[in-house]
Amino acid sequence: MKYPKIPVARSIVALCEAKGIHHVVISPGSRNAPLTTGFAYHPNIKTYSVVDERCAAFVAVGMAQQLQKPVAVVCTSGSALLNYYPAVAEAFYSDIPLVVISADRPIERIDIGDGQTIRQKNVFENHILYSANLHSELVLENEAKDKKLQQKQFESQKHNEREINLALNKAIEEKGPVHINVPFYEPLYETVEDVEVNPIQILPEIIERTYSQNQLQAYADLWNRAARKMVIIGVSSPNLVEQQFLDRLANDPSVIVFTETTSNVQQEKFFTRIDTIIGPIEKDEYREQLFDNLQPEILLTFGGMIVSKKIKAFLRNYQPKHHWHVDPKKAYNTFFCLNKHFETSVNSFFNQFFPLTEISESNYAEYWQEVRSRRKIKHEDYMGRIPYSDLKAMQLICPEVSENSIVQLANSSTIRYAQLFRWKESLKIYCNRGTSGIDGSISTAVGAAIVSDEPVLMITGDLSFFYDSNALWNKHIPKNFRIIILNNRGGGIFRILPGDKNSETFDEYFETVHDLHAKPICDLYGFEYSRAQTSEEIKQGLIAFFDTSDKPKVLEIFTPRKVNDEVLLEYFSFVR
Amino acid sequence: MKYPKIPVARSIVALCEAKGIHHVVISPGSRNAPLTTGFAYHPNIKTYSVVDERCAAFVAVGMAQQLQKPVAVVCTSGSALLNYYPAVAEAFYSDIPLVVISADRPIERIDIGDGQTIRQKNVFENHILYSANLHSELVLENEAKDKKLQQKQFESQKHNEREINLALNKAIEEKGPVHINVPFYEPLYETVEDVEVNPIQILPEIIERTYSQNQLQAYADLWNRAARKMVIIGVSSPNLVEQQFLDRLANDPSVIVFTETTSNVQQEKFFTRIDTIIGPIEKDEYREQLFDNLQPEILLTFGGMIVSKKIKAFLRNYQPKHHWHVDPKKAYNTFFCLNKHFETSVNSFFNQFFPLTEISESNYAEYWQEVRSRRKIKHEDYMGRIPYSDLKAMQLICPEVSENSIVQLANSSTIRYAQLFRWKESLKIYCNRGTSGIDGSISTAVGAAIVSDEPVLMITGDLSFFYDSNALWNKHIPKNFRIIILNNRGGGIFRILPGDKNSETFDEYFETVHDLHAKPICDLYGFEYSRAQTSEEIKQGLIAFFDTSDKPKVLEIFTPRKVNDEVLLEYFSFVR
Repeated sequence: MKYPKIPVARSIVALCEAKGIHHVVISPGSRNAPLTTGFAYHPNIKTYSVVDERCAAFVAVGMAQQLQKPVAVVCTSGSALLNYYPAVAEAFYSDIPLVVISADRPIERIDIGDGQTIRQKNVFENHILYSANLHSELVLENEAKDKKLQQKQFESQKHNEREINLALNKAIEEKGPVHINVPFYEPLYETVEDVEVNPIQILPEIIERTYSQNQLQAYADLWNRAARKMVIIGVSSPNLVEQQFLDRLANDPSVIVFTETTSNVQQEKFFTRIDTIIGPIEKDEYREQLFDNLQPEILLTFGGMIVSKKIKAFLRNYQPKHHWHVDPKKAYNTFFCLNKHFETSVNSFFNQFFPLTEISESNYAEYWQEVRSRRKIKHEDYMGRIPYSDLKAMQLICPEVSENSIVQLANSSTIRYAQLFRWKESLKIYCNRGTSGIDGSISTAVGAAIVSDEPVLMITGDLSFFYDSNALWNKHIPKNFRIIILNNRGGGIFRILPGDKNSETFDEYFETVHDLHAKPICDLYGFEYSRAQTSEEIKQGLIAFFDTSDKPKVLEIFTPRKVNDEVLLEYFSFVR
Repeated sequence: MKYPKIPVARSIVALCEAKGIHHVVISPGSRNAPLTTGFAYHPNIKTYSVVDERCAAFVAVGMAQQLQKPVAVVCTSGSALLNYYPAVAEAFYSDIPLVVISADRPIERIDIGDGQTIRQKNVFENHILYSANLHSELVLENEAKDKKLQQKQFESQKHNEREINLALNKAIEEKGPVHINVPFYEPLYETVEDVEVNPIQILPEIIERTYSQNQLQAYADLWNRAARKMVIIGVSSPNLVEQQFLDRLANDPSVIVFTETTSNVQQEKFFTRIDTIIGPIEKDEYREQLFDNLQPEILLTFGGMIVSKKIKAFLRNYQPKHHWHVDPKKAYNTFFCLNKHFETSVNSFFNQFFPLTEISESNYAEYWQEVRSRRKIKHEDYMGRIPYSDLKAMQLICPEVSENSIVQLANSSTIRYAQLFRWKESLKIYCNRGTSGIDGSISTAVGAAIVSDEPVLMITGDLSFFYDSNALWNKHIPKNFRIIILNNRGGGIFRILPGDKNSETFDEYFETVHDLHAKPICDLYGFEYSRAQTSEEIKQGLIAFFDTSDKPKVLEIFTPRKVNDEVLLEYFSFVR
């Protein structure tokens, strides 16, 4: 087997492999040649070439999200690295173990006018869990003639190995992005055969707090006394929580559980569509009374980001007395009333907490179940009446998605429309809600598709699609990858916000109206393309769309841009 | 006239206008609505909508480069801002006054789980001249009922105004990127009519050192005594230096002046093609003697980055006794022997320095002029012999570029090929050499084209083109904009570097071979498209290509990827 000649490159590759990194996304460059050859030649590591670093990093995010293991990205020195930043921030807020490995020039070449040379050290400081700034190796250890120099090189190498370990461990332990910056002297392309690599191994340590009965009893007492308890499940990977615990919550009449498409939990009694509950209340003349009825005494949350703006606005106004969040890593004060962070996994928490609790008598759940049933009927009614629009298109798509698919939703209209529907239970649904950007959704879906056995469907708006169209410049996209574009000729979300609609300024700087369509992009990157612009065409189009094929496919659905906002805004009035 | 209701937004717009910012590139968003409306409604400010923030910032770089004045980019909160980073770094190293204005959420909304919210404060810390972190305005000043609150708001507003002034002044004074981060409370879309805006004005102060005869005499003495003086002019804007000074250098027999395509100076005696001098010496059996002859006693440099790697390698090995750099802002220790930084403009320096100097006797210039003449003949000879290739294509393009055009060159093969030719004197030639990235060249050219009266020609490789193809998603591109793509099906530069060519790993991870072509991108964004794949087709194609048209145009030249490296590498042996 071939190895790069530079020892620190061998150490990085060996430690990545030892810690379970088996997928590495590489962008072309010269300075990173020692890493590229090291990873590409390794028999246990799969490497992928992606030219645009912005896409490359999101591809890795999509992979890591599915694998629940760290994935590395490797780039050359200079601005290449900066193109990773949007994905680094997404990984930071979405708790995704993204390992950024950047080649650098030796320190004496920085800020002296050399090409592709910037200040890479700690460049992601605001949004990174660990930055390992490695040393350059002036002379290769085994080539140093002098004993003292050999010793110095040995110590430098051991320092580097420790730093690599700590960075990778951090990514594994705390699930987030880390950065390893490694300066290389030339020559960069030399390889050696079968050199033993034996870097020091420091194992990651995943510490999970356990809470004693003593510690939990006071909380259990509060829980038992409260007649209105609300649980909200944010973005979660499938199987985060044991079903028995979900069922226990579902069967407590004093508990209502709000979930979102991205919560990836299934329970018949859960309120899967938060906005269909809260939205109509906002429009109701008795809204204050209704919100009073809904206001919980205890709010228990787990999982990541919450999509619904409406639930945030409601709970910030109608504060629960207690907000407890369960997560081993972090707790956000989303509603400005967080007063307890249980620093443990959800399963461990419920396992210890539920034995201390009892089912409380209450009509809280029942009352809102009734509201939910009414809304469901109204929802169906409304869906039967509305004209052709984004909402209509989403209604037609929802039941047709193949069972057991992975669905990736783009920001920002797409995920909001999706929240209004009940999706098949066998689906796993994702959306980049860490930063809620439109910048890398397609690439993330591509990453998911590359490492998943299940078919991946991306649903996106037009701006997100064109923004990230370089995502399709990727030789590894599987044939069963599918993209549905809801093309309403601009940023439809802006029509829903309180701007000064239908002025030139609005069209150009908010909605950003355009007349692009995706066919040329599909021609360029070898996707099958079809289009639809009526409900009938969507129904027809979807049948063929999910059939097996030799190429990945795009279905582009054109909707009338000026109808969408009214249809959506009217929805909340109608279903109340 | 309409103004945003939020005072800090009005102050930003008013101060930008007062300090000469008349072009603002805006990316769509909601949080930045107060800025968008403020800039879009201003009668003296031209605004441009660009969806992809990575492109938007490079467009602004291209504009600022031409205008020699600051240009602002405006984006919403969240990862949008991070997409500016590649252009921010380019502006940082290329001394371009890029003013980044980002909308933010109020501080209490950061890291609590709100969408599109990251840690924007000081996010560009490694590569920014000034970060103004403004205050939120909890209550609008004129709406505060309470005197104390009014006073607090007044003070906060004045603080903000000062920070805005300081940031903008820094961009003007030191020519580089600055960041103004401004948190906004909702409502964001409200406007008011004709409200007087009267922010405090702090004027920028451009300090230029002047050197007295006393201070310069010692350097003049060294200069006068030296028989071999080399001047290298890095990246410069046209008209940086008065012609009289250039002529004086040219007519001193002890001085040789090396320039590059990006130096934008004209003098018959200058060595415009550094690599055609140095490259062949590297291949010569008498190279040590030749380099000894070339080694200067004094090296004088001005301008920005130097493209030629060969001159860097030569001077790092054959060190001049003195390296002096003239620039009001910075001096890089490019050759590891910098011993004087004259902190003043080039004209001011020569104006004071030349009266102290005399023309020295020497055969230095004459000797190398002769070498140059020989190389020129060999160059022509070689060009007549070579097969169809990148080098051949560049030879055919070079004489056909319309007089008085602006030429933008991409990294990294394109600029290196361009360096081997003598271009028309009326051209102004640019390349993003700050970070030498492939990431925003097309967008930079688009920015230049939008604000220039002269036609802009972009010459690019295929990877740079596809990487930045979103650049063409821009409604403001003028009809006379032209792009020539040298499509050799991958990163041809890697074939020239010492990698393990023709292995699978090489093809995929270094050269990154592909079979894309630009026609679909042209179809999508409304460019006229033509192609050429022989010398004859290039000649024919170029005639029509520069004709006036209703649409901007792309000419895509396909070259055989496996010939190019040999043709280039052989060049340096042949012309010696």
